[in-house]
Amino acid sequence: MNYIDFDKTASWTKLHSLLPAGKSFDFSVKLDSQRIRQCTAPMAGGLSYNWAAKAADEPVLSALQSLADEQELIVKYQALLDGNIMNTGEKRRVLHHLLRGQSGGTVIHEGKNLGEFYRQELNRFSAFAELVRAGKIIGTTGKSFKNAVQIGIGGSDLGPRAMYLALDNWAIRNGKKKLNAFFISNVDPDDASAVAASVDLSETVFVLVSKSGTTQETLANELFVKDKLTKAGLEPGKHMVAVTSETSPLARNPAYLDSFYIDDFIGGRYSSTSAVGGVILSLAFGPEVFSNFLAGAHEADKLSLEKDILKNAAVLDALLGVWERNFLAYPSTAVLPYSQALSRFPAHLQQLDMESNGKRVNRFGAEISYAAGPVVFGEPGTNGQHSFYQLLHQGTDIIPLQFVGFTENQRNDDVEVDGSVSQTKLNANLVAQIAAFAKGKDDGDKNKYFPGGRPSSLIHGKQLDPAALGSLLAHFENKVMFQGFVWNLNSFDQEGVQLGKILTKKVLAGNSGDSALDAYSTLLGICRA
Amino acid sequence: MNYIDFDKTASWTKLHSLLPAGKSFDFSVKLDSQRIRQCTAPMAGGLSYNWAAKAADEPVLSALQSLADEQELIVKYQALLDGNIMNTGEKRRVLHHLLRGQSGGTVIHEGKNLGEFYRQELNRFSAFAELVRAGKIIGTTGKSFKNAVQIGIGGSDLGPRAMYLALDNWAIRNGKKKLNAFFISNVDPDDASAVAASVDLSETVFVLVSKSGTTQETLANELFVKDKLTKAGLEPGKHMVAVTSETSPLARNPAYLDSFYIDDFIGGRYSSTSAVGGVILSLAFGPEVFSNFLAGAHEADKLSLEKDILKNAAVLDALLGVWERNFLAYPSTAVLPYSQALSRFPAHLQQLDMESNGKRVNRFGAEISYAAGPVVFGEPGTNGQHSFYQLLHQGTDIIPLQFVGFTENQRNDDVEVDGSVSQTKLNANLVAQIAAFAKGKDDGDKNKYFPGGRPSSLIHGKQLDPAALGSLLAHFENKVMFQGFVWNLNSFDQEGVQLGKILTKKVLAGNSGDSALDAYSTLLGICRA
Repeated sequence: MNYIDFDKTASWTKLHSLLPAGKSFDFSVKLDSQRIRQCTAPMAGGLSYNWAAKAADEPVLSALQSLADEQELIVKYQALLDGNIMNTGEKRRVLHHLLRGQSGGTVIHEGKNLGEFYRQELNRFSAFAELVRAGKIIGTTGKSFKNAVQIGIGGSDLGPRAMYLALDNWAIRNGKKKLNAFFISNVDPDDASAVAASVDLSETVFVLVSKSGTTQETLANELFVKDKLTKAGLEPGKHMVAVTSETSPLARNPAYLDSFYIDDFIGGRYSSTSAVGGVILSLAFGPEVFSNFLAGAHEADKLSLEKDILKNAAVLDALLGVWERNFLAYPSTAVLPYSQALSRFPAHLQQLDMESNGKRVNRFGAEISYAAGPVVFGEPGTNGQHSFYQLLHQGTDIIPLQFVGFTENQRNDDVEVDGSVSQTKLNANLVAQIAAFAKGKDDGDKNKYFPGGRPSSLIHGKQLDPAALGSLLAHFENKVMFQGFVWNLNSFDQEGVQLGKILTKKVLAGNSGDSALDAYSTLLGICRA
Repeated sequence: MNYIDFDKTASWTKLHSLLPAGKSFDFSVKLDSQRIRQCTAPMAGGLSYNWAAKAADEPVLSALQSLADEQELIVKYQALLDGNIMNTGEKRRVLHHLLRGQSGGTVIHEGKNLGEFYRQELNRFSAFAELVRAGKIIGTTGKSFKNAVQIGIGGSDLGPRAMYLALDNWAIRNGKKKLNAFFISNVDPDDASAVAASVDLSETVFVLVSKSGTTQETLANELFVKDKLTKAGLEPGKHMVAVTSETSPLARNPAYLDSFYIDDFIGGRYSSTSAVGGVILSLAFGPEVFSNFLAGAHEADKLSLEKDILKNAAVLDALLGVWERNFLAYPSTAVLPYSQALSRFPAHLQQLDMESNGKRVNRFGAEISYAAGPVVFGEPGTNGQHSFYQLLHQGTDIIPLQFVGFTENQRNDDVEVDGSVSQTKLNANLVAQIAAFAKGKDDGDKNKYFPGGRPSSLIHGKQLDPAALGSLLAHFENKVMFQGFVWNLNSFDQEGVQLGKILTKKVLAGNSGDSALDAYSTLLGICRA
């Protein structure tokens, strides 16, 4: 495989030559029903990716196909699936795809078949979840568990929380919901205190998640919770399972009901389809729902192997994002799901994207001289319309938009007002926004003038069910991976989080040796040790 | 008063000449304990604004003071307080400051003293809240109200919801909490359906909030809820109050228990200190808590009249933001509260800032040729550290940061682990991050190298109590206002939300006359009328 910086490729030069056409792309003429019907790529789980409202014509698409070929996106993806060391800095394989199915060769690591290992853990926590849901594993006082509380931060929190919220109403509607899930993440003691006070601890099982078993926030919150359990007369060991790596201090520890394992080849932000997401989702909704979620993701992973960019939604999304980031020079992008169930999905994508590609050096540690990962933010529509859309429509910067919408809601509980149900109003708003952003509106009063030319894409499907959610998640994971290949980055490490950890320890030890740290500590009332 | 575009001011030229010094500002040398002690401005409610980690030295500050004087920031603010028509496009006064106290002259509009009007409404809804809390206003079946559900969107949702979450734990700890609050905002029917299913309707009072009384989402959700109440055998009229303007269809309507009024001079995103925030907060926490919240905001409003920018935190924050946006050319900014209670405060600021200053024309409707409002996003620390901070530390773009922290937590429930309580760990992380962003760290391995030079400011105080929250809210409202004055914008209208509304109606009516709207409608399963 050939790893070269993006600005050293022939495609970089070619795309630069096409920039004037991209800047003058006129949606008010080009965005018609024919383009909307044609500009679609299939996704897994019954979803489709529609990119009609992107400023890309035939020459740009052709150059993007050349870029995909030149940077060997599919070759590198296949190498990753086959278990090559793609996280080069940390010298690790990248195996989250293997959690949901085999798309590459058998991966053997130190004599262990990792596909089998992941399946075995899936089977183990599925069985555990079934027993809890059946009331066969019970708490100290003999009561069944009604609540599951995840203790974790970052990838052990954002993804699982977003997935739980995304499926909660679907599971209620379909009779799958058994346990309520809660999440403790922040080291701010108000977080753990409030969650612990909101549940009956005797009916609660905690899921402690830390791959390394050394995450400061998570260990503090574990002891916080154990203290509460003990004070309530309960045995902590009967109310907690661990999700960790086999080499962590939490592994095979009799202090927990059971432990389920991942390994160093499952990055935190890519761990929703591992035990990190699997235990809590299986407890809440059952292993079958989690299995359907994995199936959707696996189907998406297979579609992502397609070499024709027009048939590969993840690659196409990645390339259009590169076109907007590096050539049209848009520094941020907004994710706008028209589904209340996806209320925290943008927060998960924020981590997924910004932690993966928020890098300034290439995979060999040399500084790059082009922009990499953008700022990602978002809130559900229609809420965002009454908030930050003003800037999206009429601000001085252009921000590309990722819309998501579904024909049906999840709860099948709706009311007709003024001739339409709320679901129709929701989608009418979505449709209207795409057109308004792209086409704008002329007006003699410049205050009421909409310049248009604000690009978007739309992921749409019938309903947000487990398979559709798995597809959606894997789409973005793979999109981010492909962008990392284009930018020649290592999307799988996060060295940028280390300095803060080191300085925090110095502050807590009271020996920072830095007058700035001492002065700020004084402002925040930190007493010196 | 003199309204000129920013790039026509003498300060614009002066600041441009200072740009090289700003770009080369070396925090690793300059950020020491002396600078940290000196670079502080007082705020209301016991808070302070520390800007030591901003790339601004004496010449820049002097030029920013000249800019404040030249663009007449305080003069314009005083004019606004005095009731002048500062929302020029809509020809409206801007009177949210008057909700919390008199800082300018008496404002008479069509013979009505508006300060008295706002106080009268405050008194009316305070009395209503007291009666509900005392169990003297009760539901259909004679039960006291235990839940209050706000139905509103945009400013009728984000601000009140963020303020509720910010004070919930404080109120519980201090014995003020009486009703639980919930919020329905999205027209996605899953939102209203899930909230309605989660409460005992016989013990629930709804607060319907729409200034115009015509907000599509809110009216659909009102009927959604009334349908549920009726089906539960309850009288909707005994379970709902309205917050609206006196000229709206919701006003003086016997369909509600009572109605509380605002007017056109209270913008949605500036309405948290009106009945829009006041009714729900007073029901949940009592009128006294809301009154202390207003007092904090009022004190902040008074401090914002100070002409010396080094003594006026809101002006200084505004000017440093302009320096970063227009000269250092940073396109976005992150809000990072180290307090779980402020989990939705960034979402409120996102609306406040992006809807106010996300404009491309000046207050006279002429196109501006400089950048205005930035993208605003954020999540609470320490959660964000395990998510998007990678990009903040090592991404290709620099993003200015707004930290917020408190010496004490709200629930006074903490645990000591490894020699420190969680609150200390929380603040040690905050302190470490400021230094890490500013100073960076050299490393032979470029993957572990932190460039530093990433500016931040810190708002800090003892505890997030009602007065501190009022101060914090007003600080940002006033900051955004001052930036609008610098950019010569109207920060108080939102014409950018209109086009979407018009097109939505066309889609719903089935007569869009636009093949693109029709094609997207087909994708989303919208049946033609």
